Amino acid sequence: MKRIGLWLTSIALIFMLGCSPQATSSQWVTKQSFTTENFTTLGGEVIPEVQVGWEAYGELNEAKDNVILITHFFSGNSHAAGKYAETDPMPGYWDAIIGPGKAIDTNKYYVISSDTLVNQEPHNPNVITTGPASINPATGKPYGLDFPVVTIRDFVNVQKLLLESLGIERLHAVVGASMGSLQALEWSVAYPDKVERLISVIGMGESDPWTIATLQQWANPILADPHWNQGDYYGGEAPTEGVIQALMSITLQAQHPVIFNQLHAASSATEKAPLQNINENFAAVEQLRAMATARATYADANHILYLVRANQLFVAGHGNSLEEGLANIKAKTLLLPATNDVLLQPYLAKRIYNILTDQGKSVIYDEIQGPWGHLDGIISISSKEDLLRDFLSN
Amino acid sequence: MKRIGLWLTSIALIFMLGCSPQATSSQWVTKQSFTTENFTTLGGEVIPEVQVGWEAYGELNEAKDNVILITHFFSGNSHAAGKYAETDPMPGYWDAIIGPGKAIDTNKYYVISSDTLVNQEPHNPNVITTGPASINPATGKPYGLDFPVVTIRDFVNVQKLLLESLGIERLHAVVGASMGSLQALEWSVAYPDKVERLISVIGMGESDPWTIATLQQWANPILADPHWNQGDYYGGEAPTEGVIQALMSITLQAQHPVIFNQLHAASSATEKAPLQNINENFAAVEQLRAMATARATYADANHILYLVRANQLFVAGHGNSLEEGLANIKAKTLLLPATNDVLLQPYLAKRIYNILTDQGKSVIYDEIQGPWGHLDGIISISSKEDLLRDFLSN
Repeated sequence: MKRIGLWLTSIALIFMLGCSPQATSSQWVTKQSFTTENFTTLGGEVIPEVQVGWEAYGELNEAKDNVILITHFFSGNSHAAGKYAETDPMPGYWDAIIGPGKAIDTNKYYVISSDTLVNQEPHNPNVITTGPASINPATGKPYGLDFPVVTIRDFVNVQKLLLESLGIERLHAVVGASMGSLQALEWSVAYPDKVERLISVIGMGESDPWTIATLQQWANPILADPHWNQGDYYGGEAPTEGVIQALMSITLQAQHPVIFNQLHAASSATEKAPLQNINENFAAVEQLRAMATARATYADANHILYLVRANQLFVAGHGNSLEEGLANIKAKTLLLPATNDVLLQPYLAKRIYNILTDQGKSVIYDEIQGPWGHLDGIISISSKEDLLRDFLSN
Repeated sequence: MKRIGLWLTSIALIFMLGCSPQATSSQWVTKQSFTTENFTTLGGEVIPEVQVGWEAYGELNEAKDNVILITHFFSGNSHAAGKYAETDPMPGYWDAIIGPGKAIDTNKYYVISSDTLVNQEPHNPNVITTGPASINPATGKPYGLDFPVVTIRDFVNVQKLLLESLGIERLHAVVGASMGSLQALEWSVAYPDKVERLISVIGMGESDPWTIATLQQWANPILADPHWNQGDYYGGEAPTEGVIQALMSITLQAQHPVIFNQLHAASSATEKAPLQNINENFAAVEQLRAMATARATYADANHILYLVRANQLFVAGHGNSLEEGLANIKAKTLLLPATNDVLLQPYLAKRIYNILTDQGKSVIYDEIQGPWGHLDGIISISSKEDLLRDFLSN
């Protein structure tokens, strides 16, 4: 039992680091880079230079009309499928459904995935992003809090510029999980004539007050860390404890109790050390902390704050209401929340479904089953293989 | 809508401060104090002097066999019913079910409620408790982390000594919500011949790894606060920011999204200030913080840490397994989880139910319906009035 727990923990750890538990990829991928200048944010600020990483799987056809865009989740990056090298322990996070003959078939589609602005992990060698940790050309130093607040619309607008640089004008589909689903939805609302199909996995249409407050729990330990220093820590010690606590909460809240209890089955209320000493921790807490500490190496505290803010500010269309935004959609829509998700619960996707149905739009709702909760959107996605394949080819 | 939101928030705030939303009590109560010496903890440490507050409603009969003990929740205290004075805005938290003619009928029963060890609010004038903020007679200074780790069993043992000091040898029933349910269960397991009936509201039988890790989120911001200083802050500045963040998480996690969204309906993703400035907060976050800041006045950081630990260490009977502990029970048992509880979810009470049923014991399982989630165990308790009354008189 203990051995199974450890094995599952290592799988979870590898997943958390941005890879998929399916190690059967035969695709080789390379990270590429896109740069654009004088990018104007939704808030009206100008970022002199924006650079993001991207990767692609499959071949762009001559008409450039076989493109599927994959948009990544909060702790993820553009590595959605394939491997960089033989020695990679795991392929990209959705390798189970992206590849030759798979649900998102790279024999048919040109699948492209990009890093977002303010990516959680600017220090990950496989991530290229622009955010508070980037150098501000005006000062020659990292932006810190001088970086403007950015939104899901801004993530989408950078992707649009990237696609235009490749001569791509419309999308066969845009597909994303969690924060990726927000981008997929925003694409369809902001550029309805450019998106034919939209797949929102474990998503929402709008941050409600509960979600805003829940996300704030991830920002709070960073804001309280004395090393954060109002975001100005790049010359000195980083607010690592704040980042570790944020990542502990993110990891915990993305899991349903069922799977968390299985992964940490060796930990229990009967442990002796925490009874004997208030400074001792339970094994489950130590494991969660070890995983968060490993991930913290690549993360940046300000980037997490800006990601939290981008998600808190999300309402599809960034207008006055969700209804107003969704009214723009022309894409066929597939909504795939996870039944056991305790973070972005299915009621959020149902709300999109109800509004789109009232508006007379084409929308399918189905739920992903599994023990993982929110993470079922990644780990259990292949259970919806046939549905995905059919939706994409109709 | 905004007005309703504010009204509900003020109701919630008053509740959080330890009172009930039903302001119709006609009972006058007085806080009393109990002291015991050389109290030995489950961990084998000796506390030279323990003092706790208690209150009682109704009359103790001559046989002293009409006693119902009420055990309080994490952020609560012994003020379960009645008012101290005409000017009190609200009566005790379960006043809806404790009083003359109510489900827990003080015309029949002598209802007694005590403060626990390490109560969250040692600075609340209506709380008497012993914990890290108390004076260590060996040094003349507050214990800090020299205070031993205490458990739910220790809370129960202090209550047992209090009851014995009143000549009470057995309980008609023991009833508690949340952490109070842990104490009620522990009474029935540790002293099976002294407890005739047990009512566990929004409870659990054992802290599983998910619950251990979730509770740890309440401790983490205190541990990371530089003013915490390994628990030694009584001469200087207290770790107030850590306490505020802990109380924000406790308040949020005790509520289901439905009620949180109703209470904070004036807040939304369309707020302008958080888009314009990363340092600005959403109204929902500001309200949550204001509520936590108000509560922090009475709270002590170390007491929260010790309460978290007592809950993390809980397995009924404090033996090797939950099954082993529950095997001791002789009391008739009523389990009342709340359907929408996202903190101590109904699966925890179901587990107790399944084990007790397998062991051939007398057990009833029912769920409290309501929009509040965990807090339905307090706020929606009167929906189970008839069930409680019947269970107590059979």
